[in-house]
Amino acid sequence: MIFDKVLSTINKYNLIENGDKIVLGLSGGPDSVCLLHILNRLKQQKNIEVYAAHLNHQIRGIEAQKDALYVSKLCEEMGTTLFIKSIDVPKYCEEKGMSLEEGARKLRYEMFDEIKNKTKSNKIAVGHNLNDQAETVLMRIMRGTGLQGLRGIEYIRDGVIIRPILDVERSQIEEYCEKNNLNPRIDKTNLEGIYTRNKIRLELLPYMKDNFNSNVIESIVRMSNNLKLDSEYIEQEAEIKFKEVCNLLEDSVEVDLKEYVDLHEAIKVRILRSSIKYILGDTNFIDYKHIEDILDLESDTKIDKKIILPRGIFVYRKKESIILTNKEIIVEDIEFKYNVPSNGFIKIKEIREIIETQTMSIERYKSTRADKASKVFDFNKIKGGIVVRSRKQGDKIKLTMGSKKIKDLFIDLKIPRDDRCKVPIILDEQGIICVGEYKVSENYKIDDKTKEVLKISFKKL
Amino acid sequence: MIFDKVLSTINKYNLIENGDKIVLGLSGGPDSVCLLHILNRLKQQKNIEVYAAHLNHQIRGIEAQKDALYVSKLCEEMGTTLFIKSIDVPKYCEEKGMSLEEGARKLRYEMFDEIKNKTKSNKIAVGHNLNDQAETVLMRIMRGTGLQGLRGIEYIRDGVIIRPILDVERSQIEEYCEKNNLNPRIDKTNLEGIYTRNKIRLELLPYMKDNFNSNVIESIVRMSNNLKLDSEYIEQEAEIKFKEVCNLLEDSVEVDLKEYVDLHEAIKVRILRSSIKYILGDTNFIDYKHIEDILDLESDTKIDKKIILPRGIFVYRKKESIILTNKEIIVEDIEFKYNVPSNGFIKIKEIREIIETQTMSIERYKSTRADKASKVFDFNKIKGGIVVRSRKQGDKIKLTMGSKKIKDLFIDLKIPRDDRCKVPIILDEQGIICVGEYKVSENYKIDDKTKEVLKISFKKL
Repeated sequence: MIFDKVLSTINKYNLIENGDKIVLGLSGGPDSVCLLHILNRLKQQKNIEVYAAHLNHQIRGIEAQKDALYVSKLCEEMGTTLFIKSIDVPKYCEEKGMSLEEGARKLRYEMFDEIKNKTKSNKIAVGHNLNDQAETVLMRIMRGTGLQGLRGIEYIRDGVIIRPILDVERSQIEEYCEKNNLNPRIDKTNLEGIYTRNKIRLELLPYMKDNFNSNVIESIVRMSNNLKLDSEYIEQEAEIKFKEVCNLLEDSVEVDLKEYVDLHEAIKVRILRSSIKYILGDTNFIDYKHIEDILDLESDTKIDKKIILPRGIFVYRKKESIILTNKEIIVEDIEFKYNVPSNGFIKIKEIREIIETQTMSIERYKSTRADKASKVFDFNKIKGGIVVRSRKQGDKIKLTMGSKKIKDLFIDLKIPRDDRCKVPIILDEQGIICVGEYKVSENYKIDDKTKEVLKISFKKL
Repeated sequence: MIFDKVLSTINKYNLIENGDKIVLGLSGGPDSVCLLHILNRLKQQKNIEVYAAHLNHQIRGIEAQKDALYVSKLCEEMGTTLFIKSIDVPKYCEEKGMSLEEGARKLRYEMFDEIKNKTKSNKIAVGHNLNDQAETVLMRIMRGTGLQGLRGIEYIRDGVIIRPILDVERSQIEEYCEKNNLNPRIDKTNLEGIYTRNKIRLELLPYMKDNFNSNVIESIVRMSNNLKLDSEYIEQEAEIKFKEVCNLLEDSVEVDLKEYVDLHEAIKVRILRSSIKYILGDTNFIDYKHIEDILDLESDTKIDKKIILPRGIFVYRKKESIILTNKEIIVEDIEFKYNVPSNGFIKIKEIREIIETQTMSIERYKSTRADKASKVFDFNKIKGGIVVRSRKQGDKIKLTMGSKKIKDLFIDLKIPRDDRCKVPIILDEQGIICVGEYKVSENYKIDDKTKEVLKISFKKL
């Protein structure tokens, strides 16, 4: 019965293909021993080869030695090639500053990879079961997770690591071992989060079974399997949108706001995570709070805002995009200064603009057509030479309501910070005559007494 | 602080709009009392009117009486109009065969609706808190749920029922009541699933807090809020596809397979649920197993299959669609029988076809062009009159490999069951000459000795 169940899992998720060469992680506990026995039975049918790999972690000296002896004998009986590697895991962990759990896991997978290469295998089989699945999901729920985390352990990861007995309950596995006289070792140090997982296994789940639902393990696993579909669908859609909406550059991602703003927030959140993953390789230490901060940049009131996330990620709100990058963007200010003739033109190469000036009598001015790209002034109110230059700190202009800082004017006009140095400021020796085409000073306006007019036109090169 | 939090919840989910008239469910417990106090403080700011509604459920005689007295006094002090309704809930439940929980809930919401109409209100406010939210989600996880269920309690349902204190922890609510000298009644019969919910509240969550994560409540609620977005997105996409792919008829839904098959399973599952909901009004008693059975109908090997779901739902796999309906589809067999002239034609109105016959010498036949829509036979092998009729049980035809049942032939040819009675069977007194254009009998084939040929042509009207 359990054999059929495992076979159905293998077929459903396409875990094993004809001709596969599989490295099996064999601890000597019931899960891996049962899995070895089942894979052996499948050898002929699936035309596979199976190698066993055992890590002697030297954590409990004598016990670890006994584990190694047991798996040697078992593999001999079964005719399975066994690789044993002996590493002083406690010492390794101390040196590397890792927990025993982390260290043993890292070394185990390193060993799997090594043996996989040595034997020219293409798969690694590990023995997680249905209870592990429920425990993992429950642990994640208690610690906080999202849709992705609720999917639990994957049946197959990256096409390499497979978990054929993930649908089988622990009790059935133990029964199978007993029936087949396998006498597995009782795993006294389950290295994976010993404390937490044992508490869930031995206290929390039994309590839930007794008080709420005797099928709580199946319920949690079924939920998890259903959510897998939902998660897969959203990730797939988000990936499509990520590619559509984002411009991927070296070390940075530019999110095009025009297409982005109308997407559903569930998709936006994933696009932002994918962007960060693109830059950093993963999204560790980037919490939901940070993503929310980026979401908030969408509003037009946030143009020119910059936020800094952990791990050196800078996020810039530009006029039509959000840029995520791990390099600070330093915009070099453009600076220029030219004398302006009162009748003629001057080319400002820094901003690719031409300023044309013309003086004429008020009569002639009145007879010419209105011209939106030009500004006019009372020429006799101008004192000294006319100059055009980029803005300077402290610049002010006289408006109807009084004097105003150019900086505040730029903010009111919603001119992005990077563009402000590109606005030509025109002055005489008394002060600012006009701020590009945006604003003219009260002090130079034509009135009843104006005799001569200065006309200034702005043209893009 | 809690006031600001509630205000932010109200604004975030747009729970209260200017000028709303709100009926508040007031049990007298800390939640509803706190909510009344907060809504009162919002009266001016939001320009709202608040009415309180209390159900004296008569479950614990004296205590229920005290509850009613307490809320009367409180509302008097606060200047809030109070409606009290007294119903013998235990008696009502016994008569209706309902649990106390179900019955009290039903009566409470009936009362809310009644008072909402009487006062011309547009909202009903109820006092669920953050702990209720975590407890609900945890309960659903243990019992088995999907993405929708993990969303937990909604902040606003159908634009009417609002839950403004859903982001506030129970302890903060109790603190608020104390600070404001509200002296709420301690709710001795929390009618909602007394046993289960109290166990979660008093045992399970504290155990999780102590052993796994002191912020477990916030973690669960945050997970739930994030999943809300995901769920909303998938439901929205599925709704769009449901409308695109399904033809909605009276009491039945026709799923167009051409567009349906390429959709993601997460969407398919929802389309099928929506179809059932369209027919029945809800999907109660329709389990995941049933949906899986419908998913399986997709395969072309399932053409003509019918499955029956609970609550009288029939699902038919047609050639190009899946039909869900609450009426059994009974296809009336078409029956017809006509004599066929050996040189002439006969119109079969039942199937809108014309059968034309022609006899000619073998020499003449050989000089005519091949014609795919016609079949030819040795005229001298035919005995007696020729007849065309609809198929009958037991019909057989002689083929190269021997005799074959017409029924099996139809299956091999993948002719849908409903179309089988429309195939014209042509016979003489010895047996079947041919099955429409599909197959001719071995017994009537032309050979070296053939002198006269019978040509039969099939034409659609």
